[in-house]
Formats: sequence, C-alpha cells, structure tokens
Amino acid sequence: MSANSFGKLFCVTSFGESHGPFIGGVIDGCPPNFLLDLDQIQKELQRRKPGQSEITTQRKEEDKVEFISGIFEGRSTGMPIAFLIKNADHRSEDYSHLKDQFRPSHADFTWQSKYGIRDYRGGGRSSARETAIRVVGGAIAKQILTKWNVSIQAYTYSIGDLKLENKEITIDANDIESNLVRCPDKELSKKMISLINEVQAKGDTIGGVVGCKIINTPIGLGDPVYERLEANLAKAMLSINASKGFEIGSGFEGSKMLGSEHNDHFDLQDKKIIMKSNFSGGVQGGISNGMPIEFKVAFKPVATIMKDQKSIDKEGKETVIKGKGRHDPCVVPRAVPIVEAMAAMVILDHLMINNSLNLKSE
Amino acid sequence: MSANSFGKLFCVTSFGESHGPFIGGVIDGCPPNFLLDLDQIQKELQRRKPGQSEITTQRKEEDKVEFISGIFEGRSTGMPIAFLIKNADHRSEDYSHLKDQFRPSHADFTWQSKYGIRDYRGGGRSSARETAIRVVGGAIAKQILTKWNVSIQAYTYSIGDLKLENKEITIDANDIESNLVRCPDKELSKKMISLINEVQAKGDTIGGVVGCKIINTPIGLGDPVYERLEANLAKAMLSINASKGFEIGSGFEGSKMLGSEHNDHFDLQDKKIIMKSNFSGGVQGGISNGMPIEFKVAFKPVATIMKDQKSIDKEGKETVIKGKGRHDPCVVPRAVPIVEAMAAMVILDHLMINNSLNLKSE
Amino acid sequence: MSANSFGKLFCVTSFGESHGPFIGGVIDGCPPNFLLDLDQIQKELQRRKPGQSEITTQRKEEDKVEFISGIFEGRSTGMPIAFLIKNADHRSEDYSHLKDQFRPSHADFTWQSKYGIRDYRGGGRSSARETAIRVVGGAIAKQILTKWNVSIQAYTYSIGDLKLENKEITIDANDIESNLVRCPDKELSKKMISLINEVQAKGDTIGGVVGCKIINTPIGLGDPVYERLEANLAKAMLSINASKGFEIGSGFEGSKMLGSEHNDHFDLQDKKIIMKSNFSGGVQGGISNGMPIEFKVAFKPVATIMKDQKSIDKEGKETVIKGKGRHDPCVVPRAVPIVEAMAAMVILDHLMINNSLNLKSE
Amino acid sequence: MSANSFGKLFCVTSFGESHGPFIGGVIDGCPPNFLLDLDQIQKELQRRKPGQSEITTQRKEEDKVEFISGIFEGRSTGMPIAFLIKNADHRSEDYSHLKDQFRPSHADFTWQSKYGIRDYRGGGRSSARETAIRVVGGAIAKQILTKWNVSIQAYTYSIGDLKLENKEITIDANDIESNLVRCPDKELSKKMISLINEVQAKGDTIGGVVGCKIINTPIGLGDPVYERLEANLAKAMLSINASKGFEIGSGFEGSKMLGSEHNDHFDLQDKKIIMKSNFSGGVQGGISNGMPIEFKVAFKPVATIMKDQKSIDKEGKETVIKGKGRHDPCVVPRAVPIVEAMAAMVILDHLMINNSLNLKSE
Repeated sequence: MSANSFGKLFCVTSFGESHGPFIGGVIDGCPPNFLLDLDQIQKELQRRKPGQSEITTQRKEEDKVEFISGIFEGRSTGMPIAFLIKNADHRSEDYSHLKDQFRPSHADFTWQSKYGIRDYRGGGRSSARETAIRVVGGAIAKQILTKWNVSIQAYTYSIGDLKLENKEITIDANDIESNLVRCPDKELSKKMISLINEVQAKGDTIGGVVGCKIINTPIGLGDPVYERLEANLAKAMLSINASKGFEIGSGFEGSKMLGSEHNDHFDLQDKKIIMKSNFSGGVQGGISNGMPIEFKVAFKPVATIMKDQKSIDKEGKETVIKGKGRHDPCVVPRAVPIVEAMAAMVILDHLMINNSLNLKSE
Repeated sequence: MSANSFGKLFCVTSFGESHGPFIGGVIDGCPPNFLLDLDQIQKELQRRKPGQSEITTQRKEEDKVEFISGIFEGRSTGMPIAFLIKNADHRSEDYSHLKDQFRPSHADFTWQSKYGIRDYRGGGRSSARETAIRVVGGAIAKQILTKWNVSIQAYTYSIGDLKLENKEITIDANDIESNLVRCPDKELSKKMISLINEVQAKGDTIGGVVGCKIINTPIGLGDPVYERLEANLAKAMLSINASKGFEIGSGFEGSKMLGSEHNDHFDLQDKKIIMKSNFSGGVQGGISNGMPIEFKVAFKPVATIMKDQKSIDKEGKETVIKGKGRHDPCVVPRAVPIVEAMAAMVILDHLMINNSLNLKSE
Repeated sequence: MSANSFGKLFCVTSFGESHGPFIGGVIDGCPPNFLLDLDQIQKELQRRKPGQSEITTQRKEEDKVEFISGIFEGRSTGMPIAFLIKNADHRSEDYSHLKDQFRPSHADFTWQSKYGIRDYRGGGRSSARETAIRVVGGAIAKQILTKWNVSIQAYTYSIGDLKLENKEITIDANDIESNLVRCPDKELSKKMISLINEVQAKGDTIGGVVGCKIINTPIGLGDPVYERLEANLAKAMLSINASKGFEIGSGFEGSKMLGSEHNDHFDLQDKKIIMKSNFSGGVQGGISNGMPIEFKVAFKPVATIMKDQKSIDKEGKETVIKGKGRHDPCVVPRAVPIVEAMAAMVILDHLMINNSLNLKSE
Repeated sequence: MSANSFGKLFCVTSFGESHGPFIGGVIDGCPPNFLLDLDQIQKELQRRKPGQSEITTQRKEEDKVEFISGIFEGRSTGMPIAFLIKNADHRSEDYSHLKDQFRPSHADFTWQSKYGIRDYRGGGRSSARETAIRVVGGAIAKQILTKWNVSIQAYTYSIGDLKLENKEITIDANDIESNLVRCPDKELSKKMISLINEVQAKGDTIGGVVGCKIINTPIGLGDPVYERLEANLAKAMLSINASKGFEIGSGFEGSKMLGSEHNDHFDLQDKKIIMKSNFSGGVQGGISNGMPIEFKVAFKPVATIMKDQKSIDKEGKETVIKGKGRHDPCVVPRAVPIVEAMAAMVILDHLMINNSLNLKSE
C-alpha cells in the first residue's frame, strides 16, 4: 500500500528530499546469494546524474551510492538492501523565495493543498532527484534479469518535432550512449542537441519522447485482467516525473488501423513460434509473447524556465516567479536510464510472480 | 497481490469465463450504510452490453446483475458486495475449432504458453465479457462519488482517422448517449457510424480513441512518486482489453511544446485558485489540482475478423482460422462506459486513501 | 488490503451472509493445470458442516459447493476459482427479535457501532457459516501441498478442563475422525463428548483448544522479521471466529523454562539434520526448520446460550435476550477442519513466495 | 508484500544488520503536518536499548536515532520518514567462530538453508537489534494516537514461574518504569530481578510473559473476517523475536469456561455502553468494543547461553558452540516497549483504515 514503494515481490521503497542530507532506498525481495556488480550500479547512476553534459542541469552531484545493508561479501543476502546517496550541491537559498509561492505546473500548489505543509527547498521530494533511487533499483533488477538474457534498452525517440523516422536505425546501446541526447541516429542526435541548445539559450525548455525495447523476455509474463504486463509498464512510466503518456506496440497510431492490417501473424523461426509483425508490442492478452516489448513514453517540457512568470502565493495573491535555479532544458536524455530502470523492475517482478506458480517440488 | 482484483481500499475482485455459467465480482471496502441505486447500476450495464445496436456484436445477453451479499434493505453493509451475471447466449460450438489453434493477436498463444491450459470457449476469461464486472464496480463507485459531486464522462474521441476536432463541442452526457457511437459531435458521429458499417461490411474491424473528462475532483487526490493519480489511471486504462495507449493533459502532443507554452498559469475565480489552461490535465506532481482531469485511451482494432487468416496450431503447424463468431467491428462505443468505470474506481480509491490521513478525531 | 481476502499469492476472497441466498468465495493465484479432486473438497466441507452429529448445531445444510469458474476439464486454469454454497435451512424469523438488540459477547454491538447498519439475520456475516469458505480454500491448498508431501492434521486437544495428556497418543487422522469430538485419544474423547452433552443439557456452552501438527514442511518457509511463519499462522488462527489464543512449540509453558532446557539440539538422521527436541515448534528465526510445525489455538465458549440473558438494545435500554436458535454447544470439533484449512493456506502461500525467489532460468 | 514492512496504511519498512554500519527504517503513510516530539521518540528507544541495566545485555549502544527525511520544521510532511541508528559497539570477532556453525534454537540453520548465505556477525538481521526500528515506528504511532487519547501500556506479567497474581495492582506507567524488570508489582519485581540474577549467574537464561493494556481505543477498530483486530495484534506480537504465544482477553484460560460465565454483559456508565466484565479483551466479532484491549505475549528463554553446547557445522559435523558474547539473560524487560510499539502501529493502522470509510465530504 505504501505510496513510496514500487513492486510486489521485488519491492523498492524510496525516501529523501532534494535538499535533505541524503536520498535513499530499500530494496526488499531481492533474490538471495546473487553476486552483485556494484560498479555497474554506479555506472547506471552516472547516466542519470545531473551535470553530466552541457544539455543537463548544472547541479553537481557525485551521486555516489553507498550500500548499508543486505549485501555480504558482495552477494545479496535476501535481506533488505538499503542504500544512501548524499545530497552535496544543494543551494537551498535559491529556493527561499518559493516558500510562499506556487510555481506554475509544479507540485507546489497541489502538495501544499494536500499536506498543508511542504519542504519547498529544491522541490523537496517532488524533485526529479528521487529518480536516482529508481535507477539503483533498476540496475539491480537488470543484473538479475541477465540470468534470463533479458536486455532492456531505452533511447531518445523525439525532441520537440524532431523524431526518429529512419526505419533502418537499430536500437544499439553503443550508438545511444555515444551522444549527449541518447538518440541512436547519429545525424538526428546532432539536430536534437542543437534544438535543445537553442531552446536553452532562450531560457526555455522542451519536451520529447523516450522509446524502449526489451528483448528476450520469456513468454508468459503478465497476469490477466488487472495485472497485465502493459498495465504495469504504463503505471511505472506514468509514475516518472514529467511523463504525460504511454503507448505500447502500435499505440495511438494503431487506433487508426484495420484489424486485417493490425493482426500479427504467426511464423516459425528455428522451430520457435514468432510473429511476422509486432503491432502488439510484445504483449497479447496482457501476457508477453516472446517478441520484443516496445513502448514509448511522452515527457512534457520542464516547468522551470529561466523567464519570469506570473503566479500566485499561498494567500492567493498575484506574484512573479523569478526564473532562477539550475534545471534541465529537456529531461529526455536523463529520462532514458530511468525508463529502463522502471521497466527492469516491472519485468523482474512479473518473472518472480511467474516463478511462484511453479508446481515442481524440486 | 491478486491479479484479478483492482483497487486498494475500494477493491473489486472479478471472476468467470465467457462461456461458464456466470461471470461475477466481489466489491470489498465499499463504505457502509450507503443507499445504492440498483437500477442505475443496471443502466450502466446496458451501456456496455452486447447486442445494443447494429454496430456492436450480436451476441444477446440480458446482462442482468444479481446481488447476493453485502446489501441489506438497499444499503451497503460494509461487507463484501458479491454479484453474478448469467451467461445466456454462448455458442461454445462456434469455438470448438479453436481448441488447438491460436488466433493471431489474441490471447490464445500467450495463455496456452503461460498456463499450459486454457478454456478456449469464447476466449474464456480473456473475453471482453469480463469488463461487465468493472462496469458494476464503477457504477457503485460513481454513486459514492456523487457525495463529492465528482462526475465522470467518457466519449468517443476518434474512430480510425475521424477525430473530434471541433473545439466548441462540449462533453455532454445527453449528446454522447444520443448516438450509437457515443461521440458528442452529432455530425461526426454519423460519419463514424458510416465508417464502422463500411468496415464491418468488409468483414474487418477498426480502432479508435476514447476521451474522458472528470470534473469536481477534490484537490489533493493522488500520492507522490509511485502512486501518482495519472499512474493509477494509466494502469487502469491499459488493463482494459484492446487498449494500447494512455495520455493525460497535453499527452504526446505536449512533448513537442516549449515550457513557456505548456505551463498552466494560475488564476483566481470566485476566490478559488484555478488554472488558465489545462495542459497538465488536472494533475500536477502526481496530485489532482481541482481542474478537470482529462485523458485519452487508444484502442486497437478487434483481432477477430470475418476473413480467413493463416495461423498455427498447438503443434506449431500452419492452419487457417475461419472468420466466424459474433464480434464487435469496433470496441470503442462499448469501451466508453468501461473507461468511466475504471476511472471512477481509481478516483474513489484515492479519495478513500486521502480520508485515511485525516487526523481529526471526530 | 481487502479485509475479506486471505493470502498474498494464493488468495481467497470470501463473501456472503448466513441468511443470504449464498455464501461463496474466489480463489486467485491457484497454480494452473493442477488436477483437482472435487470430491475431496466436498469431503472436507462435510467435516465442518452443521448438523453432522448430536454435539453440533442442528441447522441442516447440505453445504454442497458449486464451482462456477477457473476449472476446465477438471483442472485449474490459473484463472480465479469462484464457488457458491447455498444457504438452505435459514430461519430468519428466529432472529427478528435481535433487530434492535445486542447479544452479549456477540458482534452485534461492535458491528452496529462501526457500520451503522447490520444484517442481523443469523448473525449476517459474523456467523461462523463464513468459515465454510475457508475450508474450500484450504482443501485446494492441501491438495497442492501434496506435491511436497506436506500433511496437516488438527485435532481436539482439550474441552474445558479435559486435555490430552497421554504422551503416547499419536496424531492419527483415522483416530481423530473416528469420534464425534475429533480427539485422537479414544478414552478421552468419550469423556469430552459426555462433558459437551452435559453442558448442552443445561443450555450452556464450553470452550476448548485445537492442536495442529504439520509434517514434511520444506525447510525455509517463512520470511524474516514481519512475515515470520509463526506470525502468519497466528494471524490466520486469530481470524477464526471465537479463537482467543495461539501458541507455537513450547508456547506459554516455554516462558517458564531455562534456555539450557529449551534449546533444541541438532542431530543427524539418515544424513539429514534434525533436532532432538521440538520446543521451537518447527520454526526458528521465523523460518521452518523441517521439524513438525506444532501449534495450538484456544477457543472460547460459544456466546449463544439457551438461557435468557440481560442485555441492551440499540437505544441503550435494558432488555432480555431469549435463549433460542440452533447453535453449537462447543465449536471445537468443527473448528478442527477450519484450523487445518487456514494452516494449509499459510503454508502454501509461503511456499509460493519461496518459489518466486528461485533464480534458475529453467 | 514486502517481508520487511509492517502495516497497511501506516507502514514501517525496516533494514540493517546487527554489525553493519547502521540499522534503520522508513515510515510511509504518516499523517502530514503533525508536530513530532523527537525527544519522546528517543526516550522510547532508551527503554529498549541494550546496556540499560544489570539484567540486560552489556552491549553498549547509544541508539541515537537520526531522522533524514520526511520531517520539516519539526512536522511530518506526508513524505517517507527515514531514520538511521548507528551500530557502535559491535565486536564482530566474537562471532567469527560461528561462520560455519549453527547455534541451537537460533536462526543460523534455517537462514543458511533458505538463503544459501548469511551475515553471521552478531546474528546479522535475525538479531533482536532490529526491534529498535519497531520502537521508532511505534513511538510515532503513539504520538499520533494521543489525538484520540489512546494510551498503550505493556508490563512484565511473569518471569519463569513468578507471575502477577495480585488483582489489586493497577497497570501504572510510573510503577512499571520504576524497576528494572518493568513489573507493576513492586514486591514481585524484586523477586523477578533476583531470579534473573540467579539464572544469569549460572550462565543460563529464562523466559516470561509480557502483558499489554490499551485504553480509550475507539469503538469500531478491526475489520471482519480476516483482518480482525486480534488477528493483526497476534501477527504483530508473533513477529517479535523469541515470542511463542499470544492470547487476548480470557485467552487459553477462557477455553475452560462456560458460555454463561464468559459472556460480557452490557452496562451503562454515564450514558455510554460498557461491559461489566472483559473476558472478550476489548474485541468482539473482530472489532474493538471500547473496553480496554488486554492481551499477553509469551517469550521463550534466550537461546544464547554462557555454557558450551554441542551442535553441528555447515557440513553436518558435530561441533561445540562456545558460550561467549554479550546477551540478555531474559528478554522480557526490554520486550515491554517493543510490544507497545507493535500494538501502537496496529491500532493506528486500523484507525486510518476506519477513517478511509468516512463518507462525509468535509
């Protein structure tokens, strides 16, 4: 029930505010006696961390994760894996003017209304800083999923109007990580970076879409009716800050198609049943069919802009929000590892649920 | 944890196959001593039931709901409300040819692979017949939500390429229910019906998009981080058969916008804080802001078509699926009440979670 | 979260009132493709059903369970298994005098206070009739547990002051079922039956204790800290009507012992590690150790007596409750199968949780 | 589902091993904007901490709790409250001999068997050190419960054969805290302390029973059927290290009584409905009736004794466990605040669940 926990069997609980001493998390349900690659976890964090390039926020955080429980001699013990990440470069004074002001399209107004109190420093817990916790959880989930050869790769599909249309581009990790914007199309990535620079120069921000492809998912993940695999992926993605939409397979475009066009026909490849097309996006009847799971997540432009904006204060009086602070001109490049992390946790959770149904006594 | 239950505090558990004696459900957590309007629940079921018009499946089901517990002298008792809906017009013989065959883009292959067994008659439990249970749960949730004046209205936004573009159309229940396709734009609805008829005449099917608008939602619904209101709405919608996408507020289009365009500025109306625009779709920081909650759900074309299709059987051998049975040429019109029902259950659940935090002792 | 559901992965949801048309349940999470022995389920229900002997209530119920979903050609399909049990012999008129009266030590006062409404006919849902649902869930769990050779046997340990002290008596199913009171000691069982007859003749009731022994439990069931195996057994047992206490292994007597007496020392038997004594009751550190799990459950005397009792009504005015209706003079004999059923569901649930942690990809 | 989380709406997640850098916890669902008394929380920890007196373990821990999130300007923010407690005085070298040995009646064997790995230093996470987390969670729950005037007081009921039989003793906090053994009967407490000293001098340990009384519980807490108040109290208590039994109201003694003796008759006191006796222990039909909730918890003698004991090692070979380390001769005095803490969390959770059902829109 906990609103700050994610996952049923592989469960991450997240805590911490942007300007508190630490953010951190607790992973419960991690399979025991698994040799963890802690460096790899740190590498995933580097992909998300602020200040990594000119097109991300300049807040400097080392984002060094420190594990304080649940790991013994490098292996998971089956006990909760707790970890802390220090908040170093917080400039709370940058936020003191926001104490009584509500920034447009931020969480200020709704959180104040709901809780009657909020830690306004750096957005408190509504800050995207929280997503570092997800990346740690996802990095561990990814490592465990290698046991099944499952591999998850997200990428920047579009920034503003610029979108990946070249069908010959493959979703390759090296290509994606080789450019600041994390788009697998080298040419397009340059245009995207230019666009972000341009927008940033005007003190503005821009949105975009992250794509994700999961391969080697075992057939049979996902539960019927309410716990469909795509339903849990959708929830995971819409729980990420600034996300506004999710689609799987043919998605919104698929709504324009005829059944005779949309149906994915079966084929045999090396005696294995596959589909000739993948409009279903790897899921049929709520359950993975062995084809790549393919989905997209829409992100709105960041609400914090470097322009003064009219707003209101706690008393409902008009006020002006100064455009200051350090923020991403576009969340999409840093959202890529977050999307992967959330996907990894969903897939592992469903895999563990499937395992539970195994009737064999050995 | 139950994969056939939906909701945390207001929780519906669903059971039953398309061709079994009954489908049914159990609603646990319904606030007690609430006078239920049972006729209204039946009316919601009529909106979903098959055979209601020329553009829906011709399976004839009365879909009469029978309550067997949890209601005493017309009022909820706080105990589980169980109900049954009889399956009358099932023609299992229509499905005997599917025993060993897998229909393309259906749940046949994935369910057989996952469970090693399936009730193939009428799609068993993967049939959209299950959604009747959701409508009952949602109808009760809607009635309780009237205590807070919350009102939920879904509608057909698009069929194929035909979409609601006239910005002057209001989302009005009477307009929506006055035509078979449930589109609030009278002119457009005629075109949509023609399109569906045309597609159906060719033995084909077509997809579309359902929109939904929730008004008078109290400020403060939704929990931070993993249990954002939009995350739970997304999960609810992607759990509906044939849905492929969800977007809230600006959605995928919003990803093309600049922050300076997208931010919803505050205003005061009758001393109440409102927003001048609603790109956020009624949710900020995961929490409702009092503005209308607006989202869309994409539905793919129905996989069953009246044309013969190549496919494979259990042994992986090629086979041909005959185009027969009775099915909807387009799920969208009947999906409208289902979308409303799922939304109602999400909203009520969050409202009850909010209630739980109330520190007042009276 | 649902207050009428039990179990995390193997989950039973229960519904129905004593005098409604049906009681019933939904089992979600049953492993698929398991051949169920439906006759055996019915046999378990016979052990619980009213009117089975002179020392139980004379309400006549066939307690025939009818399965309406989730079973196909005799096998579980992985879908929810829903079932109904008809209420036949209810005499609601016997209860009309209770509409505005609160019976002492019954649920009348607390339910009315909590819900503001109650179905007073036959105790509504507070009736022990609900436990039939548990027996069905437990019967299925027991069948699945045979895959691991787990066997669960409860028995009457004491009635009033008469308790099983003969250490040479073995806990044997045939002995237990061979007498009305379900005590494995033939001589003692006769005394117990006499005592119950005596108490009943005076219009009174009496309590007792049920013991339970589970053998062949795999080592490793139970989770540390909050989900200890004994914690979940305790909850399961205290959720049974009229139960007032639970103890495992040495229990309350163990609190009087010294550590040097209480420690269970290891031994080797056929190269398997066992313990020489079992004061731990089969659980150490919250986790099963392979030794028999042994626990006891205390039941109070039934609150309904055939004597007039002073009480109060809804307005708080003094009134007299007439001693009428049909009730058990002692719940213990019928509690035996209920204790077994709850234990079976706890064990299976933990077994499935353990399965989920399996890292093997095959 | 998380095995290291407790509570549905007010939820504590616990982490950390006995000899790691920290133990800690995360409280999710704490009602927002509540002014917390942090000193009071620390005081509760002092009641549990080791080394507090001659009859507890001599491990020296300051047990200073440090809050790192969820509190702003002294008030709960509605966000997760995370906290750390440093492990200072751990002597891991004392445990190196246990690496491959299994101590009798400890968690060593079962944890190794289940997880295939264990942090053997100081018992790792099976150490009673984990209970400090519960005390923090309980201390916050207690503070919130003061809004409803609920007050919870546990006490030592028995040590070995010495039990509280003087019916005139009142359960008074000052009396209880005025002696090392936390027994409200001054004379008896002296005898208990002598007994513990005596047992300790012989290198042995002894068990006992903790009683608990909760007053001013609102009528209506607890849910019917599976989530009875007593069921959740039982689970909470059996989740405490070394506990072996739970009973409420008349408990095991009640099983010997007649219904006519056991029924609690109603009375009116200042126009309020009360019961003349309290064999029910404050709960009827699973729901609190407004009378004091009274229960007892049995604790076994600590398994670690200062005597050499025969045991086995990982290979199943015979070995001798040396009696060394620092341990409590009797857990009961330190269990008193833990029992209170667990009870407080159960009561608050049920109170919040009740709140959620409130249909009032204001």
